[in-house]
Amino acid sequence: MSQKLKVTVWNEYRHEKENEKVRAAYPQGIHTAIGEGINGDVEVTYATLDDPEHGLSEEVLNNTDVLIWWGHKAHGEVQDEIVARVQKRVWQGMGLIVLHSGHFSKVFKTLMGTSCDLKWREADEKERLWVVAPGHPIVEGIGEYIQLEEEEMYGEHFDIPQPDELVMVSWFEGGEVFRSGCTFHRGNGKIFYFRPGHETYPTYYNPQIRRVISNAVHWAAPTKREVPYYGNHKPLETIQPKVKA
Amino acid sequence: MSQKLKVTVWNEYRHEKENEKVRAAYPQGIHTAIGEGINGDVEVTYATLDDPEHGLSEEVLNNTDVLIWWGHKAHGEVQDEIVARVQKRVWQGMGLIVLHSGHFSKVFKTLMGTSCDLKWREADEKERLWVVAPGHPIVEGIGEYIQLEEEEMYGEHFDIPQPDELVMVSWFEGGEVFRSGCTFHRGNGKIFYFRPGHETYPTYYNPQIRRVISNAVHWAAPTKREVPYYGNHKPLETIQPKVKA
Amino acid sequence: MSQKLKVTVWNEYRHEKENEKVRAAYPQGIHTAIGEGINGDVEVTYATLDDPEHGLSEEVLNNTDVLIWWGHKAHGEVQDEIVARVQKRVWQGMGLIVLHSGHFSKVFKTLMGTSCDLKWREADEKERLWVVAPGHPIVEGIGEYIQLEEEEMYGEHFDIPQPDELVMVSWFEGGEVFRSGCTFHRGNGKIFYFRPGHETYPTYYNPQIRRVISNAVHWAAPTKREVPYYGNHKPLETIQPKVKA
Amino acid sequence: MSQKLKVTVWNEYRHEKENEKVRAAYPQGIHTAIGEGINGDVEVTYATLDDPEHGLSEEVLNNTDVLIWWGHKAHGEVQDEIVARVQKRVWQGMGLIVLHSGHFSKVFKTLMGTSCDLKWREADEKERLWVVAPGHPIVEGIGEYIQLEEEEMYGEHFDIPQPDELVMVSWFEGGEVFRSGCTFHRGNGKIFYFRPGHETYPTYYNPQIRRVISNAVHWAAPTKREVPYYGNHKPLETIQPKVKA
Repeated sequence: MSQKLKVTVWNEYRHEKENEKVRAAYPQGIHTAIGEGINGDVEVTYATLDDPEHGLSEEVLNNTDVLIWWGHKAHGEVQDEIVARVQKRVWQGMGLIVLHSGHFSKVFKTLMGTSCDLKWREADEKERLWVVAPGHPIVEGIGEYIQLEEEEMYGEHFDIPQPDELVMVSWFEGGEVFRSGCTFHRGNGKIFYFRPGHETYPTYYNPQIRRVISNAVHWAAPTKREVPYYGNHKPLETIQPKVKA
Repeated sequence: MSQKLKVTVWNEYRHEKENEKVRAAYPQGIHTAIGEGINGDVEVTYATLDDPEHGLSEEVLNNTDVLIWWGHKAHGEVQDEIVARVQKRVWQGMGLIVLHSGHFSKVFKTLMGTSCDLKWREADEKERLWVVAPGHPIVEGIGEYIQLEEEEMYGEHFDIPQPDELVMVSWFEGGEVFRSGCTFHRGNGKIFYFRPGHETYPTYYNPQIRRVISNAVHWAAPTKREVPYYGNHKPLETIQPKVKA
Repeated sequence: MSQKLKVTVWNEYRHEKENEKVRAAYPQGIHTAIGEGINGDVEVTYATLDDPEHGLSEEVLNNTDVLIWWGHKAHGEVQDEIVARVQKRVWQGMGLIVLHSGHFSKVFKTLMGTSCDLKWREADEKERLWVVAPGHPIVEGIGEYIQLEEEEMYGEHFDIPQPDELVMVSWFEGGEVFRSGCTFHRGNGKIFYFRPGHETYPTYYNPQIRRVISNAVHWAAPTKREVPYYGNHKPLETIQPKVKA
Repeated sequence: MSQKLKVTVWNEYRHEKENEKVRAAYPQGIHTAIGEGINGDVEVTYATLDDPEHGLSEEVLNNTDVLIWWGHKAHGEVQDEIVARVQKRVWQGMGLIVLHSGHFSKVFKTLMGTSCDLKWREADEKERLWVVAPGHPIVEGIGEYIQLEEEEMYGEHFDIPQPDELVMVSWFEGGEVFRSGCTFHRGNGKIFYFRPGHETYPTYYNPQIRRVISNAVHWAAPTKREVPYYGNHKPLETIQPKVKA
């Protein structure tokens, strides 16, 4: 019986079809570049927006340990029913890794409860992601920082709840900073938001970026235990009758 | 010019009309008992589910510094449009205090991103709320614990994100514990969840409970500053042209 | 080459020698009962207060991935030099699990920066440890709560910094609550404080307690990466000369 | 009877005496520039390293609501006894604001439990402190960022525990980032670490920097309540006798 971690990489997969520059960067789609970069004992499958049910049927999600999400220009086309399904699976324990422009996906916004808005700029500028949580398993094997010669800028204020753990902070050439690696927990599920990955740059081929995503996949693996019981609960101890006035 | 903090107490206001026992406990409604207990330089107004727009028009919310929420049996009747309006005002900086069964309100669930589910039991049992954050302004003037002779039980697991600050933890006679006083931040707004206050018990007349709610109102007051800018952002520093391969 | 995780269990080892009741509970010492309960691919060694350098030479600590600490009546006899050595190794990445009365050890107090004081009572009373972080790897395989029929009581306020993650909260028969499972990070090292384990009760034979400690050992394993550089740092970007007034 | 908040500004006060450039920037000492910038209903007094007991007698500390700390080159001369006295007062509820090079003071290191080390560089470079917690009272009246044309650089990894709240993050011209505004709680006391303020720059005359320090003073004011009881505690509920095997 397989003990492999089951990873589903979800991609909107529109830019690659419509824009030559993006297609040149990711000829098999961003999802493929992400999936090929995941190390360890994993089984990777793919799902995209234009698949039936966006590729995220109940069966697919029930067989997913960790879901990776990349979306950008078609957030509005993701059906609310599928969003609710993903949210519920996270609550049950499925890990979720939200990449780059996925900050504005319905899935992420619904799980955060905030607008998830930010500043942005496309200017081929340098980004340097500094590690601020040096003992976190997500940065195993990573140096003091990851440098990307060209990326889109995302700047603060990033409208998210305070992360449970802040793992990386970005410096941008144009003068901004950004909380680039953030963990959250929702229900039984672990969530990691990771900033880099604009569609026109080869970011997902970068070995350090791939290492962070791989580490995050293993960190976000479901914890094996019973989902808690909710609802009416019989007392575990004797409750004394109270004298009514 | 008035510098009073503007507090709106929102109550579902159904139990009091339909159930004699609740009416006996709160003849003028739970909202009135809550509002009368708030100390300091505040101006308290009331809003209920059956008011037009649930009493929460744009104008009312724009003039509210801190909103208090009590609801239970009619969460489903709160219109989604009003929920979105409250959420947006929290993001802009309005404080929000969610009481007791409000844990299951659309407003709270939307802001948390979790199910907000829990264990519960109505058994006239003793609750003791222990202070675990002794320096927090929300427990100013409060002893080591608040004891309530009869309350509904809420038990863990309480399905919320990890609170930014955990202020109080409840002990229940029947054997459970509960994270009873929890702060969260969403956008520019501060949120406090406070557990006690089942409709059949006189909890909101208890001086220590009133003190906590009063403290929380002042803690949750909006911070006076410009809401951050979001969107496309011009560089603050010169970005070097990159050499293309 | 061995990839086993190297665990050192440190025990004060005085109660067992001096008190018949404790010796009856732990004939080979508390450390042995703890060590025998650790699952997985680990290599366990032991160290005690009366060993030379308390069994914690530079060599021993440099070969320790995770250190477990049980002490109680002789905290004052632990040499400050050894405390500083342990603290430094935690900063470098060694995991640390502090058990029960270890809350008052020099090692724990030094790493927390607080008094680590609490309420306590020896009254053969029931403890129920409720899981409040259901997705945390430290509670893998653990039910909704662990029940111990007889334990010493520890009650709030427990004077620690707010934990990075609160994993378990205890209910006590006598009316108190306690934050019983808490994670912290110091430097590159991970720390877990776990409450149960008074010397007169057979707590460390309990399979659920052993499971939590085993899970914690694996969670606290060092992250493999270079320790950050500190000190004077050359600029990574060109700094413009400033015009002096 | 005075209700003014009692603020003591502590300064090492050596650079100003020994270095002409620093004396030119702060002719009355850094402490005076800090103290004069504090707004609101406060009573400011000063203490320096070369005063008897460093100006921090039991009486002075017992009459201090909030202590501000600036030190740099003579951390080692601060007596351990005075450090322990300050730590104890923080535990009792006194607020503490640690500025700039105070990161390496005994007082801060003792309260943090970490090395508090960092990267640094003196290169007259630009710093931009971005607000990442927009609703925090410490940034009331502050814009999206504070820009300082010339400052010393401090860079990550900054070896502190994860802050309870991260309020500001700095961007540096030379390519680094830094967690510049951080809150912590120890015992009943609130702590704010604020990065800027190298002795050769006029940072403490900057109105925005002064505003942050003023806000922090009011945020760190002691919460008025009894300090918790610690030690042996009688049960609040009846404990059932256990049947011994």
